[in-house]
Amino acid sequence: MNLLDKIREPADVKKLNNTELEKLAAEIRRELVRTVARTGGHLAPNLGVVELTLALHSVFDLPRDKIIWDVGHQCYVHKILTGRLSRFATLRQYGGLSGFPKRAESLYDAFDTGHSSTSISAALGFALARDLKGDDYQVVAVIGDGALTGGMAFEAMNHAGHLKTNLIVILNDNEMSISAPVGGMAAYLSRMRTDPMYSRSKEELENLLNRLPHVGPRVLKVIERLKDSFKYLVVPGMLFEELGFTYLGPIDGHNVALLKEVLQRARATRGPVLVHVITTKGKGYRPAEVNPGRFHGIGPFDPETGEPLKKEGPPTYTSVFGAEMVRQGEKNSQLVAITAAMPEGTGLMPFARRFPKRFFDVGIAEQHALTLAAGLSAAGFKPVVAIYSTFLQRAVDQVIHDIALMGLPVVLAIDRAGVVGEDGETHQGLFDLALLRCVPGMVVMAPKDEQELRHMLATAIQYNGPAALRYPRGEGIGVPLTGPAQPLPIGKGEVLRQGKDVAILALGPLVYAALAAAEELAGRGIEAAVINPRFVKPLDADLILTWADKTGCLVTVEEHVLAGGFGSAVLELLAAMGKTGVRVHCLGIDDKFVGHGKADVLREHLGLTPAGIAASVQEALAGRKKTVARKLSAREISGG
Amino acid sequence: MNLLDKIREPADVKKLNNTELEKLAAEIRRELVRTVARTGGHLAPNLGVVELTLALHSVFDLPRDKIIWDVGHQCYVHKILTGRLSRFATLRQYGGLSGFPKRAESLYDAFDTGHSSTSISAALGFALARDLKGDDYQVVAVIGDGALTGGMAFEAMNHAGHLKTNLIVILNDNEMSISAPVGGMAAYLSRMRTDPMYSRSKEELENLLNRLPHVGPRVLKVIERLKDSFKYLVVPGMLFEELGFTYLGPIDGHNVALLKEVLQRARATRGPVLVHVITTKGKGYRPAEVNPGRFHGIGPFDPETGEPLKKEGPPTYTSVFGAEMVRQGEKNSQLVAITAAMPEGTGLMPFARRFPKRFFDVGIAEQHALTLAAGLSAAGFKPVVAIYSTFLQRAVDQVIHDIALMGLPVVLAIDRAGVVGEDGETHQGLFDLALLRCVPGMVVMAPKDEQELRHMLATAIQYNGPAALRYPRGEGIGVPLTGPAQPLPIGKGEVLRQGKDVAILALGPLVYAALAAAEELAGRGIEAAVINPRFVKPLDADLILTWADKTGCLVTVEEHVLAGGFGSAVLELLAAMGKTGVRVHCLGIDDKFVGHGKADVLREHLGLTPAGIAASVQEALAGRKKTVARKLSAREISGG
Repeated sequence: MNLLDKIREPADVKKLNNTELEKLAAEIRRELVRTVARTGGHLAPNLGVVELTLALHSVFDLPRDKIIWDVGHQCYVHKILTGRLSRFATLRQYGGLSGFPKRAESLYDAFDTGHSSTSISAALGFALARDLKGDDYQVVAVIGDGALTGGMAFEAMNHAGHLKTNLIVILNDNEMSISAPVGGMAAYLSRMRTDPMYSRSKEELENLLNRLPHVGPRVLKVIERLKDSFKYLVVPGMLFEELGFTYLGPIDGHNVALLKEVLQRARATRGPVLVHVITTKGKGYRPAEVNPGRFHGIGPFDPETGEPLKKEGPPTYTSVFGAEMVRQGEKNSQLVAITAAMPEGTGLMPFARRFPKRFFDVGIAEQHALTLAAGLSAAGFKPVVAIYSTFLQRAVDQVIHDIALMGLPVVLAIDRAGVVGEDGETHQGLFDLALLRCVPGMVVMAPKDEQELRHMLATAIQYNGPAALRYPRGEGIGVPLTGPAQPLPIGKGEVLRQGKDVAILALGPLVYAALAAAEELAGRGIEAAVINPRFVKPLDADLILTWADKTGCLVTVEEHVLAGGFGSAVLELLAAMGKTGVRVHCLGIDDKFVGHGKADVLREHLGLTPAGIAASVQEALAGRKKTVARKLSAREISGG
Repeated sequence: MNLLDKIREPADVKKLNNTELEKLAAEIRRELVRTVARTGGHLAPNLGVVELTLALHSVFDLPRDKIIWDVGHQCYVHKILTGRLSRFATLRQYGGLSGFPKRAESLYDAFDTGHSSTSISAALGFALARDLKGDDYQVVAVIGDGALTGGMAFEAMNHAGHLKTNLIVILNDNEMSISAPVGGMAAYLSRMRTDPMYSRSKEELENLLNRLPHVGPRVLKVIERLKDSFKYLVVPGMLFEELGFTYLGPIDGHNVALLKEVLQRARATRGPVLVHVITTKGKGYRPAEVNPGRFHGIGPFDPETGEPLKKEGPPTYTSVFGAEMVRQGEKNSQLVAITAAMPEGTGLMPFARRFPKRFFDVGIAEQHALTLAAGLSAAGFKPVVAIYSTFLQRAVDQVIHDIALMGLPVVLAIDRAGVVGEDGETHQGLFDLALLRCVPGMVVMAPKDEQELRHMLATAIQYNGPAALRYPRGEGIGVPLTGPAQPLPIGKGEVLRQGKDVAILALGPLVYAALAAAEELAGRGIEAAVINPRFVKPLDADLILTWADKTGCLVTVEEHVLAGGFGSAVLELLAAMGKTGVRVHCLGIDDKFVGHGKADVLREHLGLTPAGIAASVQEALAGRKKTVARKLSAREISGG
């Protein structure tokens, strides 16, 4: 009989003994592999936390107690155990379960996550609220060793260590964030795991300390605390202890019985506690254990072999960027590349292999990444920071204050701009234009296809000031990638199709959707011009004004929120030029977050398709006609 | 003979012996007090680093070596020593010396700063650039203990500890950021300063360690390193050592001879070094030593007594906000207040005194502040985060990802929005509207005066979602502060003056300038309506459309960059409503940073005065007339 089918709610987990929990763990792993092989998702992180999640649900009482999952992509087991098994097959699909914790989805999800290093701050907020209300529930943050390098995790630990309230931080240490671990903290954790000096048992330490001459009261206190301590514990963790945390660990994160004991111990400890748990990413599924990086986030794959099911298609924007970076690096010895823990995701691995000294992975630390780039730039180098649009949100001040203020020539290569798909709301890249457009002196571009991406990268590298290019997740258009990358003139767009009735200004690859829309419209007797603006800042004022005059009707199209986006820039230009009487219809994303689902499905719903654009154009033209009609009647009246 | 007058460049400092350096220190302190008493500025931090700066210039070779001043408000002594004494009286004045390091001002300023915790990242950038070029200059970051709580400082130390390149971080520990120190790190530093266990001398430790039984190879290595170590050093700093830094200190930061020795030692050490220097804020000027908080940043004062020269005026927006917070706190036990190390600056001290348990100072940690607020909000409380506009730039992702995504009711009380004056480019609050307007579901308000600030705070607290209010630095308008604060209807503006020719939509206190402009214009025969929009998001669509129809000409006025600001929102509204033929003139700040100087002087230059607004209105009307004229001729032609 299958144990998993009997788990309706976390209370059912509590009824199981350790042997049953181990059996359940195996069943959960099979379910994870089976489902994620079809839906895609974050497989390896979830395989790594099966026992930890079971132990958490055994020891804590949800939803009264709160668990906050840092990043949140490791919450699948938690979802399965909290009444969502029957919907698990809908994972990451449009209208289905999110791949991240969602308060709107379940009472058992205390706090939405998606970006790294937020959990300790949020958990401390819950803990302080609990104290103010006089409640006594437990608050647990589960954070990976990678996420611990994010500065805000340190800010939160620093504050928690000061406040001394009850708070449990589980450090899920898998020696691996998305890529190889970075930093002094990683080295420190590694020493704790492997150095004999660090891994002395409590008994050994006590013996050692008892033989110390002249021990002061502080050492005595440490000895006392250690004597009270749990039998499996060893000595290390001074770094956390210095910040005010009680450190428990390191312990084997795949031993349910041990995990339950230590979590009980943590639960009984006053003040902030850090439980250091060692887990193996991809645990129990051999292809993922062997290659945890590939199985961190993966598309559909063959569960037998672990091989991706992906069909052949054009190269991705990411890979074209990566290849061009190598070419640019050959030509320019001042070029350096920076990533915040995303060397594979941003396509920088070929550059890293070719120019290891000119490549810097700073760990999950976007703020530092941008200011490090500023320093390199101020010292004469040309840094390219490759970063996802959604993570650039973490470093807005660094762009304004450390780069743009000095006009430093740093290149922002913004990947995953626009709709990203299955990762959903937390990962869509829908704000970068508004965030960058307000920054004085920024150049902001969006290539229409992967070939233009090459030219724009060359443009940004050649430009003597801060410049950004934004491009989407996934496959390119499939255009030929020929010839060397050529810098483009700054602030100049191009006309791709002539037309007298309306001009469509479509940003990035939406230009191709606009061309298809224009084709459709031609069949309905509407002659639509299609313009690739290339630059969001500075705009090609001449080009836009010319087409405003020619057609009297502009339709802007962007994968971005409308407030402050590309369309808004066009409106500002027309107003600044005193151009009235032009109908402008801005197509983009209204004031809302965009959920998860296949990118094409999302675009369909957002109207960012040829049919959607064609409909918007017709609406705009009708609006213009209405305006004209109204003006006419006004004229008739005044002429009356 | 005065020594200071003989210092033309840092090389002159090197010629002085320690006795002379002490004499020079005293002269510099007199100069600091004399000048800042007239100009205002960051007195206490500069008095604290006189000896440190002298020692730095004695040991390092600028501009070949690089010093990066974290925050940068402690760079006055450095400016005096690098050829800027003769211009020192122009400090913080329009066209004069900046109060912060500026590359554009001097070759000796390696990197512009202003916000906290950036220096280690920038310094590491310089260090890596040096290594890539094969140079061998030194890079020094000078960072306060307060700034060390900022997460990006930790991100940078984590990365530096990993890379092992030569880098010197001077921890200027004055047990005091702007206000009392916060956090586990502060407690740790304090233990190092005071705990006998931490302050054992090297000799004592060696004795202790030599008597240890069974020492492993790691301990032996530590002992070896210590034996090599400098004679003044003591044991602590394990936290930094664990991150990969060599720790030197703590040492007396007012002993020039000692400082020079330790800095030489740091210079000779391979890999990253942290030098822990203990200084006294306000050192040598009794009023500042007694009250370093008041003398952190201060306006003009009487150098004899230390008493501020400020004349009596209306209460500041900050103080009105602070008083209203107490009133709201009395009524609402769920109200909590959060500041990132600015309890005085944000006016939260009265709330903190009245409700100490509901007040949280998280240290210099804006990211954590916002996500902590999100946690408190998710757990049922109503947090008000009081934050300067310029520092909110540090936490944009936390607003998007941790607050708005869940629609959590957190209030952002954004102080110092708009032009802030003497602190200059790094501190102006000119981007908040663009950064917040793109965030789905945000409510964004700007009060026209201090009484409306009270109403808007009540509005934001009552609203069940994320809401922000932005208000300027300095004195209010002087309106009566009567009656209880009344929540305003969301998204509704008010008409303050009728007029048929043009409608001026002025945001915040600029409404008063607009009223004065309308008065001027009336004298020239132009009837200008004046509207207080109150809400930037959601806009009062009915009101704006009505006045667009009535006048055909709108002038928006804001203390904010034009790209993505309030005017842009108005343009978006008109476009979405298909409203063409309305002339809109947006008055605000073009695509540039705004330097330092008195706020009124800056507003004059930006045209954000009654005269400037009146001129813009006339320009807009001329534009409309031109458009009308053009339309007429077109009509004539078509009617031809």
